[in-house]
This record gives sequence, structure tokens and C-alpha cells, in this order.
Amino acid sequence: MDKISINQKILSKNDMDAANLRERFARNGTFAVNIMSSPGSGKTSLLEKTLGRLAEKYRVAVIEGDLQTDNDKERIEKAGVKACQIQTGGACHLEAAEIEKRLPLIDGDSLDLLIIENVGNLVCPSEYDLGQDVNMVLLSVTEGEDKPLKYPTMFFVSDVFVLNKTDLLPYVDFDADKAEENARSIKPGMEHFRISCRTGEGLDEICAWFEKKILSKKKCS
Amino acid sequence: MDKISINQKILSKNDMDAANLRERFARNGTFAVNIMSSPGSGKTSLLEKTLGRLAEKYRVAVIEGDLQTDNDKERIEKAGVKACQIQTGGACHLEAAEIEKRLPLIDGDSLDLLIIENVGNLVCPSEYDLGQDVNMVLLSVTEGEDKPLKYPTMFFVSDVFVLNKTDLLPYVDFDADKAEENARSIKPGMEHFRISCRTGEGLDEICAWFEKKILSKKKCS
Repeated sequence: MDKISINQKILSKNDMDAANLRERFARNGTFAVNIMSSPGSGKTSLLEKTLGRLAEKYRVAVIEGDLQTDNDKERIEKAGVKACQIQTGGACHLEAAEIEKRLPLIDGDSLDLLIIENVGNLVCPSEYDLGQDVNMVLLSVTEGEDKPLKYPTMFFVSDVFVLNKTDLLPYVDFDADKAEENARSIKPGMEHFRISCRTGEGLDEICAWFEKKILSKKKCS
Repeated sequence: MDKISINQKILSKNDMDAANLRERFARNGTFAVNIMSSPGSGKTSLLEKTLGRLAEKYRVAVIEGDLQTDNDKERIEKAGVKACQIQTGGACHLEAAEIEKRLPLIDGDSLDLLIIENVGNLVCPSEYDLGQDVNMVLLSVTEGEDKPLKYPTMFFVSDVFVLNKTDLLPYVDFDADKAEENARSIKPGMEHFRISCRTGEGLDEICAWFEKKILSKKKCS
């Protein structure tokens, strides 16, 4: 009997849901970003400081993930941007089916930019595809420059590395160049930004990057 | 036929391993602490700054948990304290069987104080009993005072709340009283400390607390 090799990847339920989402985002011309970090690295602050500007020109919405509270949804709405909240209960990450279920709440088939703010956790969310175009990982300068080496999976799956809270650099022992070098040692070619949501440093550059990506996605849809 | 109610908790493998560890620590008079927090809240810094002093009078060791690297083990050893490292690969938490396996490496049956520094993660480690006497949760002032509300499971299972990096309070929007109030709303009666590993604030108090606990455990063994 001849041997038949089967090399097809066996997709998990989440992988299949994520593939469906990715196709849907492509059809709609929606640029989708999955933002991940430790708790308190400043994911919501980054969104508060940038999405209001982008929402003046583009259709923008946010899906917030947290174990409990609607705090982040409320913060985003105060910034003038549509948002909905997933409360995971105890769960440590978001899954694609939860995203799909919330899209109708934020007019999800008519968006230029969808931001998914994942549960604050530098480990588990890295293992779940949400159909995003880009994974963005945030690190704040108070967390230590060895974090990319200690949490390599998260940095390996990420396309963009945002170093936040640069206004605190004078008060902490943190080598920003070393942090970026560590990140690139895990994921060569990773894009990176340095920002401060307090002083505004780097926010123009992040907004320009979002805009470029939105326009490029629209062109392809 | 009469109904028979079975109310006994069905223990998981980890619960059974943890119960065995707890019995072993009790027999040996070892006070065991499981330290948990987000990545970069300062767990290792706290240990660096306190355990050297305690090791002058007591038999102290640390089991370090990280996805990758021996960085933290090396930092603890430089502070003059015995340590071993668990590299979890991708896993987001430590389990009791891993602790049991490492005890021989640190003379684990002859300790007054065993510190287990869990993987940096404010979600998953809260669900795994390691046979500890006390769960200690750290939060740094850069992370936002709503974290106890957003990660309630971690604060609910914790006995001690340590607020770290108080030296950064002048440079961030963080209400320390509010953070403690939020923690107590999840876990009434929780002990709490405010510390700065940079300035030394609160470290004498933490050392005194460790010493009191070590002596009390020895008396009971």
C-alpha cells in the first residue's frame, strides 16, 4: 500500500473562527489591530490619545477585553470613539468567536479601523489568533528591558513594538535601546515606536502609521 | 431508594500535590510565600532588597518562575541567597508538582523561608495552589489603581498586597489610597504595605513581617 503524507495543519476551532474574521475584515477593508501587554502598560491610554484624531477622518471602533469592569469601554467612549466591552470573567485572553459576536454592537462591517484591546497579560493572549492584520505589543519603561527575552512568545507573534511611558525614563533604570535590541533578537525586523501618553511624544508618528495602514487596507479590499 | 449527597470537593491533581507540599512545609517549619504580579511590578527587586538581610539569620531560598531565561535566579544568587529557576517554556503559571521537584536543589526540607516567585501574570497563577502559607500580590504605582477591580481573582486569593515603586508617585496619576480601597473591596482585611525598592521605603516593615511569620511558623511545627 502506498503511503500518503498529510501535511495540512489541523486548525483549532479558534483558528477557523479567526480565518473567517480575517476574510470578513479583508472584504470590508477593515484594518484590525490586536493590542497586547501586561496590565497597566498603557494600552487604553494610547487609544484615548490617538483614536479621537483618527475618528475625525475614519470609521473607528474598539473592542475592550477585561476580566471585570467596563472602565476601559467608558474611557474610550469619553474620547469620542465607539466601543464595546468583553468581560471574560476569569479568562486570561480573548478568542475569535467573542470578537465575531460583538461586531454587530459596533457596526463592525463598516469600519476602517478595528482595535481589539486584549486582556492585560503578556503570556496567554499571544496564543490566540483574532483575525487581526497586526499584533501590537506594548511595554512600559517601568517593566524592565529584559521582558522580550522573558516573554518571547508574545514578542515573536507581534509585528509592532511600542515602548510607552518614556517620560518616566529619567526616574527608572531602563535601557530603551537594549529593550528594542532584545525585542528584535526575538523578532527581527519588528517595527517599533517610543511614546509617552503623558507628554505626547511619538503619538503623531503612531497616528501616521495607523493612517498609512488604514489606507493601504482600503486599497486592497 | 434513599438519596446520598456527596459534598466532598473533588481535588485536582494540582490540589493534591499542593496539599502534600503544605503538609511537608508544616512538618519542616518552612514559611512559604507565593509572590505574584504583572511582569515588571518588582517581585525580584523586592526579594533582592530583603532576603539578603533575612538570610543572615534564617535559612532562605527562592524558586523562580519564568517562561525563559535564568535572569532572576542570577539576581537572587548575587544577593547571597540560594535560588533555582523553573523555565516554563510557554506556560503562564507554576504548578505544585514543579515546586516539589525543585526542593532538593535548594535544600528544601531545611528552610525557614521559601519564596516562590511565580510567572509575571496577574491572571492565571491565581488559580494554582502551590502549598504556600501566604499569597502575596504586588502592584506598582505605574499600573493604575483600578487593577484590583479588573483582576479580582488575583486579589481575592491574596493575603498581602504590596504597592511598589512609591518613589514614582510624584510622576504618575495614581491614588494609592484608592488602590488599597479597591483591593480591600475585593478582599476585606487584606494586609498591605507600601514600598520602594529604589529608596528603601517600607522594606524594614516587610522584613519585620517576614521575620514574625517565620518565627510563628517555626513555633507551630
